[in-house]
Amino acid sequence: MELQRVRLDLEYDGTDFVGFQAQGKGERTVQQVLEATIRRLGGGESRIHGAGRTDAGVHALGQVVHFDVAWRIPEDKIATAINVNLPADLSVTKARYVESEFHARFSATGRTYRYAILNRPQPSAMLGRYVWHIAKPLDIAAMQAAAQRLIGLHDFASFGTAHAQGGSTVRSVTMLDVRRWKQCVLVTVRGNAFLRQMVRSFVGTLAAVGLERIDPDDVTRILESFDRGQCPPIAPARGLCLVRVNYDGTRLT
Amino acid sequence: MELQRVRLDLEYDGTDFVGFQAQGKGERTVQQVLEATIRRLGGGESRIHGAGRTDAGVHALGQVVHFDVAWRIPEDKIATAINVNLPADLSVTKARYVESEFHARFSATGRTYRYAILNRPQPSAMLGRYVWHIAKPLDIAAMQAAAQRLIGLHDFASFGTAHAQGGSTVRSVTMLDVRRWKQCVLVTVRGNAFLRQMVRSFVGTLAAVGLERIDPDDVTRILESFDRGQCPPIAPARGLCLVRVNYDGTRLT
Repeated sequence: MELQRVRLDLEYDGTDFVGFQAQGKGERTVQQVLEATIRRLGGGESRIHGAGRTDAGVHALGQVVHFDVAWRIPEDKIATAINVNLPADLSVTKARYVESEFHARFSATGRTYRYAILNRPQPSAMLGRYVWHIAKPLDIAAMQAAAQRLIGLHDFASFGTAHAQGGSTVRSVTMLDVRRWKQCVLVTVRGNAFLRQMVRSFVGTLAAVGLERIDPDDVTRILESFDRGQCPPIAPARGLCLVRVNYDGTRLT
Repeated sequence: MELQRVRLDLEYDGTDFVGFQAQGKGERTVQQVLEATIRRLGGGESRIHGAGRTDAGVHALGQVVHFDVAWRIPEDKIATAINVNLPADLSVTKARYVESEFHARFSATGRTYRYAILNRPQPSAMLGRYVWHIAKPLDIAAMQAAAQRLIGLHDFASFGTAHAQGGSTVRSVTMLDVRRWKQCVLVTVRGNAFLRQMVRSFVGTLAAVGLERIDPDDVTRILESFDRGQCPPIAPARGLCLVRVNYDGTRLT
C-alpha cells in the first residue's frame, strides 16, 4: 500500500511535556505521545517531524508536523480519529493529506512565537501556566526601543545555540513587537527559524530593559559580543507559545 | 487585640477544587485552603465567607471573600503575604481592610458570571480546562433570542435549586448576553444572586437552542413550568467563571 503524507496542525499545553522531541526512552514528549497514537490507529512506525522543536514547558497553538502512513482514513475524519485517542493537553486542530515534497520543518518559511508576561502586582491562578509573572511595572517604551536593535539578519550567538553542533547562529528576525494587552505585556517575534532558547533569551533581555536593569544600548552591545555569557537570564518556558508556522513566500536560510 | 475585617478579591482555577465551600473534612475547597493559609499567618480560626459558592470545577477571576483577624499586617502587604503561601491555582488579586458591616455575601448587590463555549470542530489543548467544546456550529441569533426570555425577575425553579432548603427560587437576571469571540461563544450573565446550577442550566438550555434541539418558545415554556425536570442537561462546570461581584447600587433580594 502506498504511503501518504499527512500534515497536522497541533495545539498543546506544554506544562506536562518534557518538550516536543523525544530525548530518551519513556519521556513524555509531544512526538512520543503522537507517534503512539498514530501506531494505535494502524499508521505503523511513522516518525513525526515537527516545524518547531519546542522545549519543556513551551506551548503551541500552531505547531505543524508531518508523517507518512499507509492508512486510508478519509481526510475529514483524521483530526477527530486522532483527537479521541489523545490526552486533553494535546489536540489536532487541522489535518490534511499533502504532497510528499512537503516537510514540516524544511518547507517552513517562517515561525511566529508569542510570549506573555503578566505585569501586575499579584500572580494569576487562571493564567499561571501560560505567563511569566513580573510584579514590577515594565517600561514598555524602553522595551520597544530595545526590540528594534534585534530585528534583521544577525549572528544571534549571544541569544542561543544552534540545534546542530557547529551549526550557523545567523538568523533573520522580521518582527519583534512589544505591546500591552490588558494586564499583560505580549512579545511577538517572527523569523525564518530560531536558535535554541533564542525567544526566551530575547524576552529575558527585553524584561531586563523593562525593569531598567540594562538599557537599549546594552542590547546592541550584547548582540555584537557574540557571547552567550553576556545575555541576561532567559525567561521561563511557561510564557512561550508557538503560534504559527508559515509555508508561503521565499524560504530564507 | 481587636479583630479587623479583611476583604480579599480572589482568582482560582477550579479544576482541582471540589468547590468553594467546605463540604466534609479533608476535601480540597477554596475555603479550606484559604483558611489554612490564614491560620498559618497567625490569623487564628477565621471563618471565610464568600460571595459566590461556586461548584466543583467552576473558576473565578473575581470572587470576593471576607474574614476577621487580629493580625497587624499592613494593608499593602496582605495580598503578597497570603499569595506566597497559596498553591498556584489560587491567588489573591487585591486585599484591604473593610468596615465590619461589610459582608462578602450579604452586601453583594450583583454577580457576573461568564461561560465560554469553544465552538469549532476540534477541541483545544490550551483552553480545555476553561471551555465547553461544542463541535457543531451554534446558531447565535437563536441563542440571543432565547436569552431574552430569561432576563428579568422570575421564579427560576426550572433552572436551579435554592441554596437553603425551602428557600425562594425567585431571582433577578439583569443581563444575559450571547456573543461570538474568536472561536468561542461567550455567555455573560448578571443578576442579584443565583440558584445552584442556575448559570449552567441557562447555558445548557441556550446550547440546546443553538443546536436547534429546542427553540426560543420552548425556553419560555420551560421557565413557566417551574419544573426542574423540564430543563435540558446542564453545561459542564469547566466553562464557567465568576468574573465579578458588585457592592454598589441598591441591593435586590
